[in-house]
Amino acid sequence: MKTLLLAAGLFTLAAPLSAQDTTVVTGATIIDGTGREPARDVSIVIAGGNIVSVGSSASIRIPKKARVIPAQGKYVIPGLMDANVHLVYGVSVEFLARYEGRFEELIAEAAQVGLANGLTTVFDSWGPLTPLLAVRDRIAKGEIPGSRLYVAGNIIGLTGPFGRDFNADAEKSVSKGFRNRIDEMWEEGTGPELMWMTPDSLRLAIRRYTARGMDFLKYAVSGHTQMEMLMFSPEQQRVIVEEGHRAGIVVQTHTTSVESLRQAIEAGVDLMQHCSISGRVPIPDATLALLQSRKVWCAVQPVTKVRLDATVAAATSFPRRVFYDELIKVEEANERRMVAAGIPVLLATDAGIMNPDEHDALPEAMKKDENTDHGQAHFLWFKAMAEKGMKPMDAILAATSNIAKAYHKDREIGTLEPGKRADLVILDADPLADIMNVMKISVVMKDGAVVDRAVLPLKRVLTRK
Amino acid sequence: MKTLLLAAGLFTLAAPLSAQDTTVVTGATIIDGTGREPARDVSIVIAGGNIVSVGSSASIRIPKKARVIPAQGKYVIPGLMDANVHLVYGVSVEFLARYEGRFEELIAEAAQVGLANGLTTVFDSWGPLTPLLAVRDRIAKGEIPGSRLYVAGNIIGLTGPFGRDFNADAEKSVSKGFRNRIDEMWEEGTGPELMWMTPDSLRLAIRRYTARGMDFLKYAVSGHTQMEMLMFSPEQQRVIVEEGHRAGIVVQTHTTSVESLRQAIEAGVDLMQHCSISGRVPIPDATLALLQSRKVWCAVQPVTKVRLDATVAAATSFPRRVFYDELIKVEEANERRMVAAGIPVLLATDAGIMNPDEHDALPEAMKKDENTDHGQAHFLWFKAMAEKGMKPMDAILAATSNIAKAYHKDREIGTLEPGKRADLVILDADPLADIMNVMKISVVMKDGAVVDRAVLPLKRVLTRK
Amino acid sequence: MKTLLLAAGLFTLAAPLSAQDTTVVTGATIIDGTGREPARDVSIVIAGGNIVSVGSSASIRIPKKARVIPAQGKYVIPGLMDANVHLVYGVSVEFLARYEGRFEELIAEAAQVGLANGLTTVFDSWGPLTPLLAVRDRIAKGEIPGSRLYVAGNIIGLTGPFGRDFNADAEKSVSKGFRNRIDEMWEEGTGPELMWMTPDSLRLAIRRYTARGMDFLKYAVSGHTQMEMLMFSPEQQRVIVEEGHRAGIVVQTHTTSVESLRQAIEAGVDLMQHCSISGRVPIPDATLALLQSRKVWCAVQPVTKVRLDATVAAATSFPRRVFYDELIKVEEANERRMVAAGIPVLLATDAGIMNPDEHDALPEAMKKDENTDHGQAHFLWFKAMAEKGMKPMDAILAATSNIAKAYHKDREIGTLEPGKRADLVILDADPLADIMNVMKISVVMKDGAVVDRAVLPLKRVLTRK
Amino acid sequence: MKTLLLAAGLFTLAAPLSAQDTTVVTGATIIDGTGREPARDVSIVIAGGNIVSVGSSASIRIPKKARVIPAQGKYVIPGLMDANVHLVYGVSVEFLARYEGRFEELIAEAAQVGLANGLTTVFDSWGPLTPLLAVRDRIAKGEIPGSRLYVAGNIIGLTGPFGRDFNADAEKSVSKGFRNRIDEMWEEGTGPELMWMTPDSLRLAIRRYTARGMDFLKYAVSGHTQMEMLMFSPEQQRVIVEEGHRAGIVVQTHTTSVESLRQAIEAGVDLMQHCSISGRVPIPDATLALLQSRKVWCAVQPVTKVRLDATVAAATSFPRRVFYDELIKVEEANERRMVAAGIPVLLATDAGIMNPDEHDALPEAMKKDENTDHGQAHFLWFKAMAEKGMKPMDAILAATSNIAKAYHKDREIGTLEPGKRADLVILDADPLADIMNVMKISVVMKDGAVVDRAVLPLKRVLTRK
Repeated sequence: MKTLLLAAGLFTLAAPLSAQDTTVVTGATIIDGTGREPARDVSIVIAGGNIVSVGSSASIRIPKKARVIPAQGKYVIPGLMDANVHLVYGVSVEFLARYEGRFEELIAEAAQVGLANGLTTVFDSWGPLTPLLAVRDRIAKGEIPGSRLYVAGNIIGLTGPFGRDFNADAEKSVSKGFRNRIDEMWEEGTGPELMWMTPDSLRLAIRRYTARGMDFLKYAVSGHTQMEMLMFSPEQQRVIVEEGHRAGIVVQTHTTSVESLRQAIEAGVDLMQHCSISGRVPIPDATLALLQSRKVWCAVQPVTKVRLDATVAAATSFPRRVFYDELIKVEEANERRMVAAGIPVLLATDAGIMNPDEHDALPEAMKKDENTDHGQAHFLWFKAMAEKGMKPMDAILAATSNIAKAYHKDREIGTLEPGKRADLVILDADPLADIMNVMKISVVMKDGAVVDRAVLPLKRVLTRK
Repeated sequence: MKTLLLAAGLFTLAAPLSAQDTTVVTGATIIDGTGREPARDVSIVIAGGNIVSVGSSASIRIPKKARVIPAQGKYVIPGLMDANVHLVYGVSVEFLARYEGRFEELIAEAAQVGLANGLTTVFDSWGPLTPLLAVRDRIAKGEIPGSRLYVAGNIIGLTGPFGRDFNADAEKSVSKGFRNRIDEMWEEGTGPELMWMTPDSLRLAIRRYTARGMDFLKYAVSGHTQMEMLMFSPEQQRVIVEEGHRAGIVVQTHTTSVESLRQAIEAGVDLMQHCSISGRVPIPDATLALLQSRKVWCAVQPVTKVRLDATVAAATSFPRRVFYDELIKVEEANERRMVAAGIPVLLATDAGIMNPDEHDALPEAMKKDENTDHGQAHFLWFKAMAEKGMKPMDAILAATSNIAKAYHKDREIGTLEPGKRADLVILDADPLADIMNVMKISVVMKDGAVVDRAVLPLKRVLTRK
Repeated sequence: MKTLLLAAGLFTLAAPLSAQDTTVVTGATIIDGTGREPARDVSIVIAGGNIVSVGSSASIRIPKKARVIPAQGKYVIPGLMDANVHLVYGVSVEFLARYEGRFEELIAEAAQVGLANGLTTVFDSWGPLTPLLAVRDRIAKGEIPGSRLYVAGNIIGLTGPFGRDFNADAEKSVSKGFRNRIDEMWEEGTGPELMWMTPDSLRLAIRRYTARGMDFLKYAVSGHTQMEMLMFSPEQQRVIVEEGHRAGIVVQTHTTSVESLRQAIEAGVDLMQHCSISGRVPIPDATLALLQSRKVWCAVQPVTKVRLDATVAAATSFPRRVFYDELIKVEEANERRMVAAGIPVLLATDAGIMNPDEHDALPEAMKKDENTDHGQAHFLWFKAMAEKGMKPMDAILAATSNIAKAYHKDREIGTLEPGKRADLVILDADPLADIMNVMKISVVMKDGAVVDRAVLPLKRVLTRK
Repeated sequence: MKTLLLAAGLFTLAAPLSAQDTTVVTGATIIDGTGREPARDVSIVIAGGNIVSVGSSASIRIPKKARVIPAQGKYVIPGLMDANVHLVYGVSVEFLARYEGRFEELIAEAAQVGLANGLTTVFDSWGPLTPLLAVRDRIAKGEIPGSRLYVAGNIIGLTGPFGRDFNADAEKSVSKGFRNRIDEMWEEGTGPELMWMTPDSLRLAIRRYTARGMDFLKYAVSGHTQMEMLMFSPEQQRVIVEEGHRAGIVVQTHTTSVESLRQAIEAGVDLMQHCSISGRVPIPDATLALLQSRKVWCAVQPVTKVRLDATVAAATSFPRRVFYDELIKVEEANERRMVAAGIPVLLATDAGIMNPDEHDALPEAMKKDENTDHGQAHFLWFKAMAEKGMKPMDAILAATSNIAKAYHKDREIGTLEPGKRADLVILDADPLADIMNVMKISVVMKDGAVVDRAVLPLKRVLTRK
């Protein structure tokens, strides 16, 4: 019956296929991202960058001139996704001075590092919009390799990198001209000044901003440094959500406390980043129920046990009022409750590629299980969630179809079904037996083309050999 | 007819009066704080600390052994009030280290400086609760002279003096033990940690706090340093208001933006401090209308033109994102609109007595029209509001009966009517002719006793001869 | 022969003694501070605050009405001294704000804590001159108890507590008036401005300063924070030494590097504080030889092994260029070489009584063997030097007669010889068997009077019960 | 007689000249840098990059194929020099992060900006040695245009840009790896650690350093930030001077106080930078006499009156102990005394090309007569010294032959005499009539080649069009 369904899918494709264009992955066990049980000895026919058919190897006829990728004994999953990355990653004066004018290079490098590690799609939720759009489009056109990129630009309400939300001390050491250029590249008129506005004025500002061509909107419900403070009134929040939806794009949030979390849900957002962070207090049951009833997607950024312990140990150096170790323990407990309650979540990491000098200067404890190091961050996510009791199949959905749905991209990507883009990863070992087998990558395919992982990134700026 | 009314008032007093106990102010022009036209050649009979009768001198019979205060050619107004003072005034390490353990002395000194300058009642809206209550009670019992004192304690949600809301740098230079003692003396469990809480937990915390015996509650709707950020969700705010009202006390707010202002009104508060501060955007007409329809009292802290100019000139040294000069201009415009619209306001100053060393170190521009210098601050308020077009009579109401009503103390104080406490100021010149004549004080009387202004403050700690 | 010599000493005393005035310590083993072998069963006759005779108990006739202190089985040593203390100890804003105006109380308290622990004389080498002189004189007159006090005032060339040499950050948090008052109380015109001067101008400045009545001069050859930098040229240094000697007082130095150490010797100083600190390089043999040939006294401030290890472990948090752990290891090696070479040294500690709040805030490692905690610091000195191989007898000389000689006070104090002030400590156990027996204090006598150790300090300001 | 002498000079040239190679400047008034009176209608024959002959136009025979530069009515002076520049100019994190790896570009750009403005030779007395040597050599080989470059590397004893001597705050905001790379590029083992050393160890360190191929040595006698503190003992200083001379190179100093100035002279240095800076006290007459008797060259960095006034006005923001306005007034007075005493000085500016962002951020007062802005700095020097009474002829010597002599380069450059390198500037107006006519540059020639000033700098990195 499954085969039948898949075969039926074939007819949805309009154009006749040229055999030259066709690739067939044969004989694999397929975990298709729908949540269905894995199917063994399946072949996938790919043409025009899309999946044309998926069926038992016996039933699939391989066109004569098709390229064949034999995958007997291997496992195919949809291309992995990360619901929250920052491909320009760093807020130090040193980093931004060195790379100002070269952000596109950094973004391309990060997109290629991700792709080489199985991420066929990533969502950048805070960064400089102009270079992000440029690289997004170049990747989309096939001019350069890289993960498929969707971008937000600024987190509405927050400052750019040199502002109080990210590097409040920058002001002391940086020239005004440089500071303004950088902050304006991020903010584009959506910085803290929006908080002063009446809902009506805010609406105009957001409307203007949505014309910039981003793929989704993100706004801060609570502060980035002042995590317990609120940024916008409920009325203001509704305006932001309405304007995002008016522009036809998904709206997501930055929340860090129980009240900000609840407000976000009530404002009607589609997705909440790091929604397991609720500050010093666990998420109330009522809020968790509300989240489920409103079907708001929840992206989580767990840390592994190794990392948690290192963070707690290092927390003594944090200021007295934000008990960082306390926060991370509450977050951890929230994540366990979500897993136990079967709430579907999204893989999200905040990952980026760090300035090597600054990376070297990290305390040793912070080099353990670096859960925001792009390229390994998503693997650590699998590790961390497994520790919290998540089943491999749920983890795969969290990294594929759940993200596609949350971002309203599920008509194109997220599963291995006919009509979808041919983004997939072939693994040497069964990820359902051990989720960490996602690291045993044999082949990454994006848009139907096999990725030459050995050459990525094409140019090393931040990454070392 | 007026005389009739006043005479009628006599009968409301239960106890027969002993002549020895009686004081009569005779022959004055009286501006009684009700807003009525002034009455000439009036005498006020005072006994037991209360006003017994007010009537035309001709109609008043002076008891034989009564003390007579001849006030022919003079003007009597109700005792002045300040709706917002801070009698422990200073957040520097230097100040708090020097005076830790001596806060009662400072509070008493400030209360005496105020009384000598005509302030028979002041409302302290941020300070260390324990010493404030102690001095309040000692003044109430007549153990020491001083303005009648009503106190709030902390501004709920804000840190103590050494926290991020007042002196974020203190942490770098102060010992932990000292810092904690000071902050806890202010916060008493109502600091920033409340923001993390669910409304239910918050309710318990506020209920515990209201048991401490303060006279009113104040909470921060928006931040003190982060003026555009919000502190509490509407749900949390409602809890604070409910708990204040449940304890039978007035609830007031700290607001600094258009959204915080509107939220405060909607939360059901009784009084808003510095409600003319709306950040970078004028108060919307709708909000002003809402304020009026909900009958929320509005305390304003205007600056004089001299001060405004000095502040704007000095503003170049402020950080870029908070345009302090911009804020103060918006505030000024709001105040003018309020005056024009006839919205009744309260005199409020944020005044206290500054550490003399720190006062000396102020830039010269900041020594002009020092509108938070307790003792002269309320006079500068009259000057500033006159510049904005306020009529003398409205100014007198703002400094007397409006405040009494806003704080629900109008059954006892605020007007020169029989049954009220005998708090009054006798002036040498007509304040309705020129409001600045409030500075020409002849006599201050509190609770029916003439204040010996020459000896106040009894002990000089912060004040110089 | 020894007895003969002592008996002879009797005749040097001019005045006949009244028996009432006389105290006799009987039957003790005496270690008299001259370096001689201990004498057993000795009695000491004391009158008029002086030692009148010291001789075998058999040979001493006890006046009838004399007070007798039986000391059979006990050990008597001269009163202990500390060649380097700071009785106002602290440079924080918090400390100085709290105690400004109360420095005499602090000095008296510290002098009493020291006395209770056997220190009959201390030398304060950096502090506020006016209150130090006042307390010195009150103790000298017998108005209050306390260690005999000799004081220097400022370290010439260095700033006061709020200057760059001690608390460079104070400038950011303290008012100008307070800062200037404090710094001027220490500097009295001998701060960093002297470095700018020609030798001729410097001479006038020093001459003016020596008129202030201090007991000795101290100047900085190298910096306090910039330990490797030099403060004064050799010509300037010679001027300071000449002017000190011209005023009839000892001149000592602050040195921290091999070059500053050598310069100090060549400048002709009498005493060098912490002369075992030579920075990152050991003291060259030639410099050590020069020190000996010029007979410059050397005060050392060793740390115990426990403290050394704690300091080295904590050193990772110090800035990169001053390798504090490296410095302390070099210092330690220098001290061992001095002990091995038999160079006589002085007990010195830098001790004072710390602000309790700041003490509580110290990292735990810094609470181990607190070698600058006045009251225990000198005992830790004995422990530290014993670890470095110093013999008990040499340690006792370092704490008594060596200091007296170095400060040119050996005609009055430092040994238990007739004609000296009767400053002594009676111990319950033999300090030559184990130097730590100096802690087993039975009696402290100063100026012939038994100290009531139980009541000291008379008033606790900084010390806790 | 002059002509005779010049003609005689001809015979000193060994090689026969090819006419093609020859250039003749004809008919000019020549101020030859020797201090002689100007000679009118003179022609200069140039070949092989050298001056071949200088004589009256009538007496000079122009080779047939020689290039002729008609200079009738014009004025020829030797190529200008600056005795103190810093071609990598900036110590901010922002600047050094942006240009790390590109220092050679910056140095070349600055050398070209200087050359275009008449500076045929400059002496870089603090900068990163490796790129400076590289650009020096490329210019020397004619690979790129630029001022002839002589370089020192580090100022011995001082930190690199990110150390306490230049940007003590950098440590707070910069990664350790970056900081160390930068500081090591400047210090090369000659940083503050040298101060700790004994003279013997220091000798080895300096000897090692002189092998690096710099053109001269510079060391700090007094501190850069701690201007009144001394860096090295006289013994250490002698070692540095001896090792410089042993390597056959000139040794110069950084001094900032009367004592450091005197010590430098006594140490036997050849040249003192900014020797008019003597701190808060004027240079004593005896020191000025010593300077003259020892024939130590003195480079001065005067400011114009406009600049002086701006600096004094801005000085209120400097910290209290270094009275910068006081220092600059003392410096100014010293310079006037030097001019009055006829002490020959050198033009020196500390000039470099500033990071444009940081330049824009300067207070407006600091943009007036920017006396360290390379390209205009030397012209402002002429203006400043004229204001102080210097005669034009002395100013020209200060910018040419004095510098050549001081740096022991007077056999090659500094005058317009046969045998010297043909470095010259042709002016449109008489600099002896008005020294500011040095700005009216018609032609710059270096090594006998006319500089194409219009194309310099070849690549703009820091300079704007």
